[in-house]
Amino acid sequence: MSQRQTRINVVMEAIRSRIASRSYPPGTRLPSVRAQAKAMGVSVSTVVEAYERLAAEEVICARPGSGFYVCGPVAPLALSEIGPPLDREVDPLWVSRQSLEAGASLLKPGCGWLPAAWMYEAGMRRALRATARADAAVLSDYATPLGLPALRQLLARRMAAADIEARPEQLMLTESGTQAIDLICRFFLEAGDTVLVDDPCYFNFHALLRAHRVKTVSVPFTPNGPDVEAFEAALREHSPRLYITNSGIHNPTGATLSPVIAHRLLKLADNTNLVIVEDDIFADFEVSPAPRLAAFDGLSRVIHIGSFSKTISASLRCGYVAARADWIDRLADLKIATSFGGGQLASAILLAALTDSGYRKHMEGVRIRLAEARNKTIVRLDAIGITPWIIPQAGMFIWCRLPRGIDAADVARSCLREGVVLAPGNVFSQSQDASGFLRFNAAQSMDVRVFDTLARVLPA
Amino acid sequence: MSQRQTRINVVMEAIRSRIASRSYPPGTRLPSVRAQAKAMGVSVSTVVEAYERLAAEEVICARPGSGFYVCGPVAPLALSEIGPPLDREVDPLWVSRQSLEAGASLLKPGCGWLPAAWMYEAGMRRALRATARADAAVLSDYATPLGLPALRQLLARRMAAADIEARPEQLMLTESGTQAIDLICRFFLEAGDTVLVDDPCYFNFHALLRAHRVKTVSVPFTPNGPDVEAFEAALREHSPRLYITNSGIHNPTGATLSPVIAHRLLKLADNTNLVIVEDDIFADFEVSPAPRLAAFDGLSRVIHIGSFSKTISASLRCGYVAARADWIDRLADLKIATSFGGGQLASAILLAALTDSGYRKHMEGVRIRLAEARNKTIVRLDAIGITPWIIPQAGMFIWCRLPRGIDAADVARSCLREGVVLAPGNVFSQSQDASGFLRFNAAQSMDVRVFDTLARVLPA
Repeated sequence: MSQRQTRINVVMEAIRSRIASRSYPPGTRLPSVRAQAKAMGVSVSTVVEAYERLAAEEVICARPGSGFYVCGPVAPLALSEIGPPLDREVDPLWVSRQSLEAGASLLKPGCGWLPAAWMYEAGMRRALRATARADAAVLSDYATPLGLPALRQLLARRMAAADIEARPEQLMLTESGTQAIDLICRFFLEAGDTVLVDDPCYFNFHALLRAHRVKTVSVPFTPNGPDVEAFEAALREHSPRLYITNSGIHNPTGATLSPVIAHRLLKLADNTNLVIVEDDIFADFEVSPAPRLAAFDGLSRVIHIGSFSKTISASLRCGYVAARADWIDRLADLKIATSFGGGQLASAILLAALTDSGYRKHMEGVRIRLAEARNKTIVRLDAIGITPWIIPQAGMFIWCRLPRGIDAADVARSCLREGVVLAPGNVFSQSQDASGFLRFNAAQSMDVRVFDTLARVLPA
Repeated sequence: MSQRQTRINVVMEAIRSRIASRSYPPGTRLPSVRAQAKAMGVSVSTVVEAYERLAAEEVICARPGSGFYVCGPVAPLALSEIGPPLDREVDPLWVSRQSLEAGASLLKPGCGWLPAAWMYEAGMRRALRATARADAAVLSDYATPLGLPALRQLLARRMAAADIEARPEQLMLTESGTQAIDLICRFFLEAGDTVLVDDPCYFNFHALLRAHRVKTVSVPFTPNGPDVEAFEAALREHSPRLYITNSGIHNPTGATLSPVIAHRLLKLADNTNLVIVEDDIFADFEVSPAPRLAAFDGLSRVIHIGSFSKTISASLRCGYVAARADWIDRLADLKIATSFGGGQLASAILLAALTDSGYRKHMEGVRIRLAEARNKTIVRLDAIGITPWIIPQAGMFIWCRLPRGIDAADVARSCLREGVVLAPGNVFSQSQDASGFLRFNAAQSMDVRVFDTLARVLPA
């Protein structure tokens, strides 16, 4: 390369790196050719050539009579481009979209919710009719910052029944359980912080944490909770700010936290000032309630999240968060700033559905139906060589091991071509250690075509 | 101070500064006394004393047998502590909370929405009853990532009537107009970026931008739009990434963008790759429609936001965003990650309310009633020496000047003690240049006690 070529390259590289580091943000006018030449100790013609080449690459653009500008808008936050590149089959966002977009013609054993026919449809119809007769304020006005008081009182009573004591000012309603976790992330995290999750864990935690540009560290999950040794080591090594987990029924494994592990986690958290977010959206599926971190901890460093998207309706958006009162107060500020509080309508409909005497009976029916569906699914999977990691005591999920050597992403790809949407293990796994696993939703696996397709697709 | 004292202070200061800069994040175990002494070239007893004093201050905490740790959790994001300290009366979050928390017994001429009795109550009741008969999927299932197709089609037709052409893949439903802007901020902004707003502007823009930890620069607003010279200078000086504004009826001034200023803004934006967010939530209040930036620009660099919180119901959460299809696609990823998409129920209720033939008639009535309320309010304000900055052609807001020398925050404080919630000018003003202004909501000013109280409170 000639010396002139080298000099041109050096100038181009310097400008590219300033653009990348945002010291020249999009839209910036570059220094004049003359000023740049002087600043970099090169000739004017070198800078002219460097600018022209960068313009040809569309890194900068010329405005006649006005100079060169950094092109843009560039590099807005593309979640799909954060983190290591993943096969689409194990990309959390792609898998969410597959389930959300799948029409009624597709089978969705990999999906994370119940079929509409299993949900509380009759109760929702009654609740909508009841709300049509509500006060004008319920129909028209914004809610108060923490949300509809009557619903918060009811939720506090439900939590008290699970030994979680929360005063009214410790409870805030949100648009969804996910929005609650998102607000908590906004509250506690800065870009570059570390968050601990289970491996495997609910895959949207990965997508959400990507959106916050934080580092995720995962700890292997055992049938009784996270591996405590690994948990302790992760605390020591990474000083995470938050640990996000499901209590009650764990997604995707269906496992249940044991009291002894709950205590050990809380002790470790106390010693390291870790905040724990306990996402408890599957509570109403439980047959015999598991211990809750929030109950042991008394909402000191544990934040408790819930919603009814999995039991009453995913179409009705309403979640809640229970935490220390001073945290709730600041979370309310964040909620107002980012969504201007909320409405009363969804809360009022949910309140009507929850106080309807039919809900308890509905959930009893769902639990029985799910137990049957799990049994049936386990038998059908067994017939094609797919075995459950544990036999879950409750809930819709069965975390299953494929026959040795078979890659779940390959199976998911082949099944999708035949109209069956699966959830391959690595979409749940930060360590990408679950390529031999699939998560099945028993309620979405009642159609035998699911197993026919799997049998056809699996190598003999 | 003894030399030993000085050395202890130096060690304490060094540790404090590492905690503040997060090079010792909360939960970090401090180096052992011996290691710290060696690293800092001081005696072990100096470090022991420094650690003990920091522990007494609760900056660090001792764990017997394990050493000292940085206390925490500390310094999560407190919106109220970002930016310059403001009097509570002109703090956007405080003012939002006042309006949201005010019971029916308070008068709220400073509030940003219509009284419940002015909203589309009958239509909401009909829409709720209609939705109670909808398909099970509408009652129970998540929506597809962009939201209910039938509502998006209707919104596209409404936008086409305002000369804004949007294909279906250019429209996404959100939980609210504010959530739409929040997603856009997440998409385009990094901490430290600059955003341009009007001065004055809707005060929650300030709160929202604080939550994104970005720099806000404001441009004076004239009766025909932002001051173009100042706008151009701000682009040159600050290279902002976004400009967020209201088109149609401007909040708080009630002013309307002129076509000539719209064209000049778009030309400047083109030259500097500025993205413009046009928040158009007051569109249905207009009598003769003003130009829309999105219409001139063809949704190239303008993003268009809308919702029906101000006309149909604030209790029903549903907004929308129209933009370039590739941006919408990434915004949908962000929506899924941070709120797991959305439901269909609010969209279905809104669709039913919008397609109900009564909505057009309802809005005709609201426009007439608002014109009368504005006239009446202007006359009553005039009688106590408060004069409108301009006579708005439409909408609920009147931006008013107090008699010379009177501070709006003082007036707001005194009126609040008498049960009247006002909106003092500086809550809308980045430059804090509007201390002599108040925003009145004509619809919330129909009770003469508003003016009696003001007259009593204003200095003679």
